[in-house]
This record gives sequence, structure tokens and C-alpha cells, in this order.
Amino acid sequence: KDVKNTLSVYNFKAVGIAPVLSQEAQWAKGALSALNENTRRKAIDRCKKAIDIARELGAEILIIWPGREGFDFPFTTNYVKLWNNYVSSIKEVAEYGSDIKIALEYKMEDPSSYLLHGSAGRALATILELRMLGIKNVGINVEFAHAKLAKEYVPETIVLISRYNALYHLHLNDIFFDADLDLFPASVHTLEFIELLYWLHEVGYSGWFGLDLFPRYIDAIEMVQQSIYNVKALYNALEKVGWAKIRNVIELNNPIEVQKLIREILGTKP
Amino acid sequence: KDVKNTLSVYNFKAVGIAPVLSQEAQWAKGALSALNENTRRKAIDRCKKAIDIARELGAEILIIWPGREGFDFPFTTNYVKLWNNYVSSIKEVAEYGSDIKIALEYKMEDPSSYLLHGSAGRALATILELRMLGIKNVGINVEFAHAKLAKEYVPETIVLISRYNALYHLHLNDIFFDADLDLFPASVHTLEFIELLYWLHEVGYSGWFGLDLFPRYIDAIEMVQQSIYNVKALYNALEKVGWAKIRNVIELNNPIEVQKLIREILGTKP
Amino acid sequence: KDVKNTLSVYNFKAVGIAPVLSQEAQWAKGALSALNENTRRKAIDRCKKAIDIARELGAEILIIWPGREGFDFPFTTNYVKLWNNYVSSIKEVAEYGSDIKIALEYKMEDPSSYLLHGSAGRALATILELRMLGIKNVGINVEFAHAKLAKEYVPETIVLISRYNALYHLHLNDIFFDADLDLFPASVHTLEFIELLYWLHEVGYSGWFGLDLFPRYIDAIEMVQQSIYNVKALYNALEKVGWAKIRNVIELNNPIEVQKLIREILGTKP
Amino acid sequence: KDVKNTLSVYNFKAVGIAPVLSQEAQWAKGALSALNENTRRKAIDRCKKAIDIARELGAEILIIWPGREGFDFPFTTNYVKLWNNYVSSIKEVAEYGSDIKIALEYKMEDPSSYLLHGSAGRALATILELRMLGIKNVGINVEFAHAKLAKEYVPETIVLISRYNALYHLHLNDIFFDADLDLFPASVHTLEFIELLYWLHEVGYSGWFGLDLFPRYIDAIEMVQQSIYNVKALYNALEKVGWAKIRNVIELNNPIEVQKLIREILGTKP
Repeated sequence: KDVKNTLSVYNFKAVGIAPVLSQEAQWAKGALSALNENTRRKAIDRCKKAIDIARELGAEILIIWPGREGFDFPFTTNYVKLWNNYVSSIKEVAEYGSDIKIALEYKMEDPSSYLLHGSAGRALATILELRMLGIKNVGINVEFAHAKLAKEYVPETIVLISRYNALYHLHLNDIFFDADLDLFPASVHTLEFIELLYWLHEVGYSGWFGLDLFPRYIDAIEMVQQSIYNVKALYNALEKVGWAKIRNVIELNNPIEVQKLIREILGTKP
Repeated sequence: KDVKNTLSVYNFKAVGIAPVLSQEAQWAKGALSALNENTRRKAIDRCKKAIDIARELGAEILIIWPGREGFDFPFTTNYVKLWNNYVSSIKEVAEYGSDIKIALEYKMEDPSSYLLHGSAGRALATILELRMLGIKNVGINVEFAHAKLAKEYVPETIVLISRYNALYHLHLNDIFFDADLDLFPASVHTLEFIELLYWLHEVGYSGWFGLDLFPRYIDAIEMVQQSIYNVKALYNALEKVGWAKIRNVIELNNPIEVQKLIREILGTKP
Repeated sequence: KDVKNTLSVYNFKAVGIAPVLSQEAQWAKGALSALNENTRRKAIDRCKKAIDIARELGAEILIIWPGREGFDFPFTTNYVKLWNNYVSSIKEVAEYGSDIKIALEYKMEDPSSYLLHGSAGRALATILELRMLGIKNVGINVEFAHAKLAKEYVPETIVLISRYNALYHLHLNDIFFDADLDLFPASVHTLEFIELLYWLHEVGYSGWFGLDLFPRYIDAIEMVQQSIYNVKALYNALEKVGWAKIRNVIELNNPIEVQKLIREILGTKP
Repeated sequence: KDVKNTLSVYNFKAVGIAPVLSQEAQWAKGALSALNENTRRKAIDRCKKAIDIARELGAEILIIWPGREGFDFPFTTNYVKLWNNYVSSIKEVAEYGSDIKIALEYKMEDPSSYLLHGSAGRALATILELRMLGIKNVGINVEFAHAKLAKEYVPETIVLISRYNALYHLHLNDIFFDADLDLFPASVHTLEFIELLYWLHEVGYSGWFGLDLFPRYIDAIEMVQQSIYNVKALYNALEKVGWAKIRNVIELNNPIEVQKLIREILGTKP
């Protein structure tokens, strides 16, 4: 309730709640997918409690980051049971929170060696499996850096997920190669980010954006501020050229014309 | 018919037919997903013809390797249309060949920069989408090397695909890093291959194996022979230890015990 | 001589000569590093002939792309001999062409599974080894896409190579992930390319640029033209902000200030 | 002195000393390469103190793991100064400890986004640069998992480093893809590990091995024990076949014969 009051004082709105399912020692060998039934029940219970909190705060989304749903060593795990446990836990959580959007935040690896929901495609398979069982409130939270770990091109991934009406939320940030340090959005993969913003516009995404940043030796408020500026500035660059014009060039499917378009978006000439 | 006769003379059986949908110039900008409707129709027609041939030869499987179903350049492609075209082409082919298993052979990249069916998860999403439309004869052909390009651990991937009864075929081979040179199966990722054979046994896979090899400066028949020997030898190593014993160790979910097991499978002691 | 005449008619200048050492069948198992001494001699001879041609045409650089100097299979190769052969071949070629710059074009892999000169660091080790023997005309040709295969950040790599006065030439292009398709320069890694141009300016690079492009279904002349435009446009964007200003911001070593700088270079505001 | 006494009681020998240069907050923006001169001096001083301790304990090696010698954000760093600082710090440390072997433990990335000594080649370049200045006590500590992050094939890397007499030490462990979790040696890349042991034998490596393991939920002593067993068992498998026989097969440079050899080493038949 204190949280609720504080939010209302500052006119903030809680959008998503993310239960801790990886950092604590109890989840070392899995949480929602744990082969230990006791541990798995605890993980489900924590998600249910998080749903209760989400309802109390008026938050629409429960974000599940499955950072321990996988394995660390080869030849050590019954993958059949692991997948069964994992999907049936998500099912139970989604049924409990049928009025809440359950957003799976896939990631290829780290902190475990290998994660079951490593890519958008794998999360989609679970989502469609659940839909065939009548459960329709499970979707995806795309974290830009995690998508890069899976060798995805994020603008295309967004379109694929939207094809299934499963794009529930985005975590904006960036990454160099494989060290997931939660850098400023668009500060590395700048052009990919511009195309991402274009396709979010085209698929009519109307949800929220989160910033998943890790400030370390930077002032945290400044990092958030510059991140917002980066996104807005690139959005403005697209608007200045105009959605219709960009759309027309893309319809040509001609990489020559696209080079001209990119230079125009970047506001520079040869 | 000549092919049919030759097969029968040698007591061979045609298992899978794979229409050419990537190497020819006409598919440079896509085949089943082509934005050019004329090209897309040609690709569908070729698949239908391949289904006719499969029926004639008594082959059970049509393998679709979507090597051009993707794109080469950023910001150049309408991904919404690309996915629509691709899935509806597969749908049409699958409906035409409703008595044939349509096996999608996913690959992350190469020869195009980026392929729609880059990973098992993405192929599964399409398969489940089609099942929701009543089409149940689309599954997967796992090529070991392609799975590695997607940073998959193949034993686990096999289990995931089997969860959806979608494991139609495997192409056995191996790869170093990212250059897809179709090496001898198990000649690089040996332990992973051993675990793969274990899980194929456990999920009760009863389909065929293909060898997708590229002999280059090696005698082709010798390469096939050694590839078969590699697989058989590793299968024998597992059998010698015994499926029940291996199963029991894996149930312990204890990496310490697994090290002992691996050394036993490899037939060596400290 | 015909080539020489044609060049002079069009007022073109031959900059670099690149002997074919990989695509032909004779180099399947290596050229300059070949374990077969006969093959290795042929490769050296070809390089010497290329040096003769370079002299005739007035070209300054011999580009060696060691696409077969490595191996395809594990456990098959005597790496000690491979490295000995390779370095002593380069030594012999460099001594023959002591008035020519020998530029090694490193690449991680493809067409062979694994290449000896996979990264800038490995090429530098050879270069410094040769310098200790008094051979000072061996350096590097950086191909942007190849550097990405080695997980290098190209602006930093340029600085490292320049530290050893070994930056002889650049091949400009771009790449998505690992499929080396020779895309337009700056068409994927746009921001990295901008920073690359900045550091080429700062280290005072005064050599030539080559475009290593693969037009496929694009008009080749158009592809070259747009590639030049891309590079010039980004250079202009840097000049507009001004080298001194950029330098001052980088000296601050503050990622917050850098975000502002990047937005200014991209000509857009939040 | 307490450490010294304890070591002698148990008849242990200190082999290497590794000063902490990354985990502490003071090194967040670099230690030996720090652009802040004050920080850089502190890092050098710590290395000198570690050399004093090494001398006191009779340890031969100082291991420098440069986990913060690089950068996190694009366009934020003067790479010229960074490299200058880094190499001159190593030089100063190596001169101070001229009777100690300074072993650089390269790593591609993590905990920083990008590290200067990301690969064996880059470490070798620094080592050769220092040799040209008369400093001959700098070499390499190869950590198996770090080499994999750089897409190296470790048996070949060992040979390359030995070519320069720079193989000072090894950290044995293993890794899945890119999450550096310090798994049991040979528990993932088993065949590569076997070939590594072969080449360590062939190049006559007579130094120490360290185990860089991260036990997490495993008993630490058991993890060390099984790691030693893994290495010994694979060494025994090689010995059983015999060094001469293996050497003879490798000299054939024929992948067909190698498949037979591998099956023999693994103690299994088709």
C-alpha cells in the first residue's frame, strides 16, 4: 500500500511487476522449471503473489524473466521433465492471473549456461501451445539486448511476435557482443534501433516501453534521461522523413533506394 | 520412373525429396516467401511437383530448406508481407501434400543474410500456427550444423521438437564455428552428439537419418562410410553402459555423477 | 600491358593486386601454408608473379587473402608445421617484394572451417615476428566484415593496428551476423562505421580504401556509387560537428556526453 | 607469512599469484589501462606488491586477468591512450618483476563490454612488442573458456602461443556458449580437450595447470576432484593409443583416417 500511495503522489503508474526468479540461491537449479517439486511450487507461489500485487497496484503486466529455467551442464538434465514443468508452471500462473498479461522475457543464456526460452521463437512455441489449451494471456517482453544474444534482427522479431498479437512489452537497452551490460538504447545498434521504431509504428504497437539499464559508474537519473532522449530523437528523425515516404521506399524492396533513405534519415549527404 | 527403377534394383528406398528453392538465380530474393507473386507461385508449383514425385517414389517426406526465405539488407523488406507470404505458401503446399510429411529445415543464415526460420523455435511457431488451422503434416528436419548456428544445444532441441511430435527427420553432420561445411557427424561436437543419440532413444524417435555431407577433397563414399561408423560407434558406447544406467544418473541431476558417467561412456579412467 | 594501357586511358591507378589463393581446387588444403611442399611452392610463385605485375602496373600493395590457410577438420593437422610453412612463405614473398607492401587480409573462417589469420591480433603476431627478422613490409588489409566475424570493434582495431604502423589498406563493406555477403559499407553497423571514420582521421590514415562488394541481384555500378555516397555522407556528418569538438567529448570519457554527441552527429534532437 | 607456513605444512606450492584488478569498484573504468593516471598507478602498485608476495612465497608466475582493460560504450574512449597506458603498465610491471613470469589471461568480453586483450593474437602482439624492447618475461595464461569466447580452437591456439615460447600457464575449465560459468574441464568440448592434451604433449609443455572452476551449488572439493579425473582419464585414453600412433595418423593429414583414430581413442567401434 505504501508503494501504491507513493506512486499516486507522483502520478506514476505501475505497468509491470517482475517477481525475482533467478538471483536468489533457492533458484540456482531452476524456479518455474525446477525438477525439485518443492522449489517449483515456491516459484509458482511467488508469481501468484506478484499477480496479487499487480492487481492491487493496477499493473497490467507480469514479467517473467526465466533466468534459471534451463541448465548449466551437459548430460545432467531430463529435458522432457524440464519442459513439462516449465510449461505447466506458466500455465498455472496464467490461469491464476487470467486478467493479467503474462510477458515472457526470453534470453539465450546467462546466468545459466542455457535457457529454455532462449529466443522469440521458443517463447512463441510455448505461447501457441497454451493458446491451443484456451489460455490467451501469455505473450512476450522483448529485451533488445537479449534478442541480440539470440542473433535476432529486432525489427523483424517485433513483426513476427506481432503476427501472433503477443508483443506485450519491450525493455529498451543495447549491448556490444555477448556481455549483457544494459547499455543506453540505440547507443550501439543505432540503425537497427531506427528500423525497430519504424516497425513498432507500422504494427501499431500501443503498449509500454521499459528501460532496463545498468548505470554502474554513471548517474542513474542521467542515464534514464539520455536513454529517453535517444529514443525520442530517433523517432523524430523518422517522423521528419515521414512514415508514408519510408513505407513507399520499403515497398520497392530495393537496397539501392534504401541507402538513400538511410542517409536522409541520418540527415546527411555525400 | 528411371529413378524409381534404379532404386528398386539396389533395394534402396527414397525417404525424402528436397525441391531446389535457393541455389537458382530466380530465388535470389526469396522463393516461398518471395514478395514477387509470380516467383512465389513458381516456388509453390515446384513444391507441388516434388510432392507428386515423392508420391510416385513412395517417399514419405518433403524437405523444405528455406535458404532464401529471409532478406539480405536492413530496412529493405516488408516483414509483415514476407511472413504472410511464407506461411501461406507452406500452408498451400501442406494442404496439397496432406499425405506427405512436410519437414522444415531451419537455418540461421547463409546463403541469405538472415532467414525467417532461423531456429527450431521459429519453425515450431509456424507449425503450431498451422495446426490451429487444422494442418497437421508440417514438422521439422533438424540439421545438426544449422542448429549450432542458432546456438542450440541439439539434444535439448530434439526434446523440445518431440514435445510437439514434430521431429520428422534429421540431417547428421557437424560444424566448427559458423562456416557450414557439412563435416562428419560427431567429428567436432562429439559429446553433444552422444547425448543427442541418448535423447533420440529416450523420445522414441523412429524416423530416418540423412547425412548432409560435403566431401570436397575427400572420397565421397568413404566419407559416408566413416560417418555411419561414427554414429554407430557412439551408439554402441551408450548401449554398452546401458540405457537404464544412464537414465538413472541423469535423474540424479548431479553434475558430479555425470562426470563419472561420461568417462564410463568414453571407456576411460583417471 | 593491356591492363596497364586501359588503366592509363581512364586515368585509373592500380592500388593493390590480390593473387587467387583460395577459390581454385589446387588450394583446397592450403596454399601458402600447404603441408604439401609442391603446392606451397606454387602458391609462393603465384605471389611472386603478382608482385611482378604490381611493379609493372605501379601498384603499391599486394593483398594476401589467406582463405585456405587453416584447416577444416579437428585432429587432422600438424599445426606446428602449418604455422611454420605459412610464416616462412609470407617471409619469402615479403623478401621478394621488399619494395611492395604485403597486406594480410585476416578472416575468422569460411571458406575453410578455421583460418590461421582469423583476427587482427594473429596477423599482428606474424607481422611483429617478421619485423624481429628485419622484414618490415608486411601489414594488414582490414576488411570490415571479416573483423566483425572475429568479434572485433573495428574503430578500436584500426587504432591497435596503427599502433604498429601496420594499417596498409581497408576493404569497406558490411555484414549482418556471420554470412559474409559483402553488403554496402555502413548499411548495418552504421554508428560503428562513423566511429571508424573518426579514428581513421585521428590516426592520420592516408592510404587507400577498397570496396569489397558482392552485388548479386543489384546493379554493380549503382552499388559502388551508393557505397561511396554512404562513406562520404558519414564523413560529412563528422566534419559538420567538427573534429575538435568530437575529440573534446571523447576526452571526457563520459558516456552521458557521448549520447548527446551521437545525436548531434545524426542530426536529430529529442 | 601465515600463507607461506600453511603452504609448507601441507606441502603445497604457490604457483601463481593473481592480483585483483577487476572486481573492485575502483577499477570500474580500467586498472592497468585506466585513463585516470591515479588509478593506473594504484593498479601498477598492486601488481608490484603481488610480485613481492610471489617472491616471498616462491611463486613463479604473476597472472594478470585484464577484466577491466577495455571499455563499455562506443565512441567514449581514446583507444590510442588506452593502449599506450595498458602496454606501458605491463612493461613497468614486467621490469619490476624481471625474475617472475607475467602471464596475461586474455578474455573477449565480460565484465566489460570489450577487452583489449580479447584473444591470444592480441596478447601475442603485446608480448612481441615488449620483446622488441628487451622485455622477455611476459607470456600467456590460456583459460579454456576465454579462448572459446574468442572463437579459438584451443589445440591450435596452444601451438601458436608455443611458437613464441609464451605458454606460461593454463586455466582448465569449460563453457557452453558465451556464459562464462567455469564448468568442469572437458565436460562440453570433450574432443577438443583431447586434442588439446595431445598438442600440449607434442609441444613439450612442462608448466602447471590451474583449475578455474565456479562450484555454485556443487561441493567444491568434489568439483576439483572430478575435474582432475576428467583430465587424467582423457590423457590416459591418449596414452593407451600411443603418442607415436596418433602422430603418424595426423601426419597423413587425412580426415578419413582421423575418424578411425578418434573412435579408437574413445574406445568404441561401429
